[in-house]
Amino acid sequence: MKTIEYARANRTRSLAELEEFLRIASVSTQPEHESDIGHAAEWLRDRLLSAGFPRADIMPTPGHPVVYAEWLAAGDGAPTILIYGHYDVQPPDPLEEWNTPPFEPTIVGDDIFARGAADDKGQLYVHVKAIEAFKETEGAPPVNVKCIFEGEEECGSPNLEPFIREHAGLLAADAAVISDTHIMGKELPSIVYALRGLAYIEVKVTGPEYDLHSGIYGGAVHNPINALCRMIAQLQDENGHIAIPGFYDQVRELEADERAELAKIPFERKEWLLEAGVKTDWGEPAYTIVERTTARPTLDVNGIWGGYTQPGTKTVLPSQAFAKISMRLVPDQDPAEITRLLQNYMAEIAPPAVTVEVRDLNRGNAALVRRDSPAMKAAFRAYTEVFGQEPILVREGGSIPVVATFQRELGIETVLMGLGLPDDRLHSPNEKFHLPNFYKGIETAIHFMRFLAG
Amino acid sequence: MKTIEYARANRTRSLAELEEFLRIASVSTQPEHESDIGHAAEWLRDRLLSAGFPRADIMPTPGHPVVYAEWLAAGDGAPTILIYGHYDVQPPDPLEEWNTPPFEPTIVGDDIFARGAADDKGQLYVHVKAIEAFKETEGAPPVNVKCIFEGEEECGSPNLEPFIREHAGLLAADAAVISDTHIMGKELPSIVYALRGLAYIEVKVTGPEYDLHSGIYGGAVHNPINALCRMIAQLQDENGHIAIPGFYDQVRELEADERAELAKIPFERKEWLLEAGVKTDWGEPAYTIVERTTARPTLDVNGIWGGYTQPGTKTVLPSQAFAKISMRLVPDQDPAEITRLLQNYMAEIAPPAVTVEVRDLNRGNAALVRRDSPAMKAAFRAYTEVFGQEPILVREGGSIPVVATFQRELGIETVLMGLGLPDDRLHSPNEKFHLPNFYKGIETAIHFMRFLAG
Repeated sequence: MKTIEYARANRTRSLAELEEFLRIASVSTQPEHESDIGHAAEWLRDRLLSAGFPRADIMPTPGHPVVYAEWLAAGDGAPTILIYGHYDVQPPDPLEEWNTPPFEPTIVGDDIFARGAADDKGQLYVHVKAIEAFKETEGAPPVNVKCIFEGEEECGSPNLEPFIREHAGLLAADAAVISDTHIMGKELPSIVYALRGLAYIEVKVTGPEYDLHSGIYGGAVHNPINALCRMIAQLQDENGHIAIPGFYDQVRELEADERAELAKIPFERKEWLLEAGVKTDWGEPAYTIVERTTARPTLDVNGIWGGYTQPGTKTVLPSQAFAKISMRLVPDQDPAEITRLLQNYMAEIAPPAVTVEVRDLNRGNAALVRRDSPAMKAAFRAYTEVFGQEPILVREGGSIPVVATFQRELGIETVLMGLGLPDDRLHSPNEKFHLPNFYKGIETAIHFMRFLAG
Repeated sequence: MKTIEYARANRTRSLAELEEFLRIASVSTQPEHESDIGHAAEWLRDRLLSAGFPRADIMPTPGHPVVYAEWLAAGDGAPTILIYGHYDVQPPDPLEEWNTPPFEPTIVGDDIFARGAADDKGQLYVHVKAIEAFKETEGAPPVNVKCIFEGEEECGSPNLEPFIREHAGLLAADAAVISDTHIMGKELPSIVYALRGLAYIEVKVTGPEYDLHSGIYGGAVHNPINALCRMIAQLQDENGHIAIPGFYDQVRELEADERAELAKIPFERKEWLLEAGVKTDWGEPAYTIVERTTARPTLDVNGIWGGYTQPGTKTVLPSQAFAKISMRLVPDQDPAEITRLLQNYMAEIAPPAVTVEVRDLNRGNAALVRRDSPAMKAAFRAYTEVFGQEPILVREGGSIPVVATFQRELGIETVLMGLGLPDDRLHSPNEKFHLPNFYKGIETAIHFMRFLAG
């Protein structure tokens, strides 16, 4: 097939372009990277125009802009797909743990190392190159294509849902496609059909109005760090079972048949421990590691700080202590309700001598998608064609709230055409993307459009 | 008395010199201030020589140097005092909470604001000026005087005890004098006869080898921050009663008569709350606020950090979490034994899926001094003379481990000739020293030497 041949013949150029993309430090959560965000949006718009899209626009939002593109050459009889991705990336810190600079993409063996390599620039860019291959060989893709690439995914997409609601007509499609997940292994394709949701809060505990000397006041002034630790300890038991009253009320329990399906997923505990970098696993004993990380809700402190944190000693009784806490949610937990339950519980367990404030930072819905839609079937065939092996259907532990938004606002199902690998170190130092997956991804996207066109 | 007159006539110059001293950022715990430490030692040596000391040396230690001076003109028949102080200061952070720069001394009303103003530069310098006043009026002080001023008090005096042991002959004296505590109020002198000890550790909890994505691993990898909070919560109950097995075994319980004495100390709960900047007090209900802060052992987390601590969100499951934890001890708790008990307990409660390391950062002994020594009596008379009111005898919550070291190594008792005020904000932003106390302090030191000489 000529389109595939074209994609293969142009790998070097595709990689060079990806490197350009990865050099842009488009960190969305840090104001000092504002201009990098703008630069990334412009770069992407220009590549979409080069790839053949007759329309590619930078559309403003109250935050970072959306890059929207469309190419509707396949006509009314053909299906329309809506490709979603995000051009923003996580902060790179801790910087000292990177082996190579996070925004100087470095190829080592078959991998490219950079912040955003897999999450999500490399995966997003696969679709741009697939469409360009159609343009150069068949003149246009065989299905109508719309793209929505946002710049706020890593700060919780605060403006995406209003944007989708406002532009529901523009975005109308038959199916959505997102490449922002991973497959089970290099030779083991998989498709995610369920995602966890998220509720992310920041808690601030205030004790005395200003830092005090622990010798003079210690014993009669409640230390906000001690108080915060005590509250955090009361959020879950030693196995991670969450103690917030009502937390599990809406959890859709795993059915026996789904547990049996999940148990079939190839899983090597030893390899998993190595990949996670831990001596032993942890968590709710009644569930397998796969279930705990994909189908069960969790609570993690993502950050904590307060008092004196530099070398040496300071006998301070600090004024304030802070923690960032996030919960992964499962169907049918409602993130707003969960946030409310946490706030109520925190207020209930807050010691009387300190002041506790809980701030809602981010929320996203969990999602379950239909496993038998035409788009899902086309994706299944495309993976099989490219990887020489049928993909397995899995749940994933991360959150892609837009999947639920597409269901609710546009009435469409999403195909999670993941191309990452489990050890890509998303959100961690030394994030990477496996280059064979980049090239196979372009071919999978090409076949997907072809099979969907019928 | 001419000496007092001289001191009064020279207040402006004394203050100008103190300001010079306070401008030197002699922070002992931060390596970038190494040269400031050296500068402070030289400045102090030069001022001692100007004050009349025939000998004033900078004596090396494995860490920051000791400034030693002696003037033995009173002869063998006269008593010898050993004045201890420290020329190093606490780190000034959080800088943004200072109203004026910490190393630009600023006078507002009757107070001088600067890091180290009360702890301990202002209090130490009182003695230098008292001796200078004797030199200028009587030719020499009426008692033999030795000074030992160290530069490592704020990092736990790691080299002081060996120095004292090694130079026990040089330092031989009849009594020690330290001005590094506070009096009860501007018009209410007091002398501290008991101090708390200290055991200060740093704990490091390691979960996964590197930061992970909380969506991918959350639920099956034990988060080191959650683990650390859980462990800290197990160190004490909600009222601060410490749960470490054996922790209270050596605590000398307060006798009924001492509790009765302590209850006589003027104490206004409302004022204390205002001064501490808290809405309510906290702590062991069986003890008064005065007892809790001076005669009971305590545990405070002085600092905590781990994971993502910048603005916005990052869904990281971090590799490590840290806390600095200190315990104030009372007679007869042994800091080494308490550190060992804490380490054992931490090992016992450490969750199996993380690694916990406890590092000993600092230790100091609690102390109780005789209330009827000749030096104590001279100090009592000196305060009465200057303040027009007899001082009350109190315990203090802070730690001055050198008091126990002087008892053990030199066989001498210490007079804690405190001149600070309870609201001096030691170790906090906006530390200050009350200038009338600086001037009265010089006079108290003059009278003390005179009364001691008999």
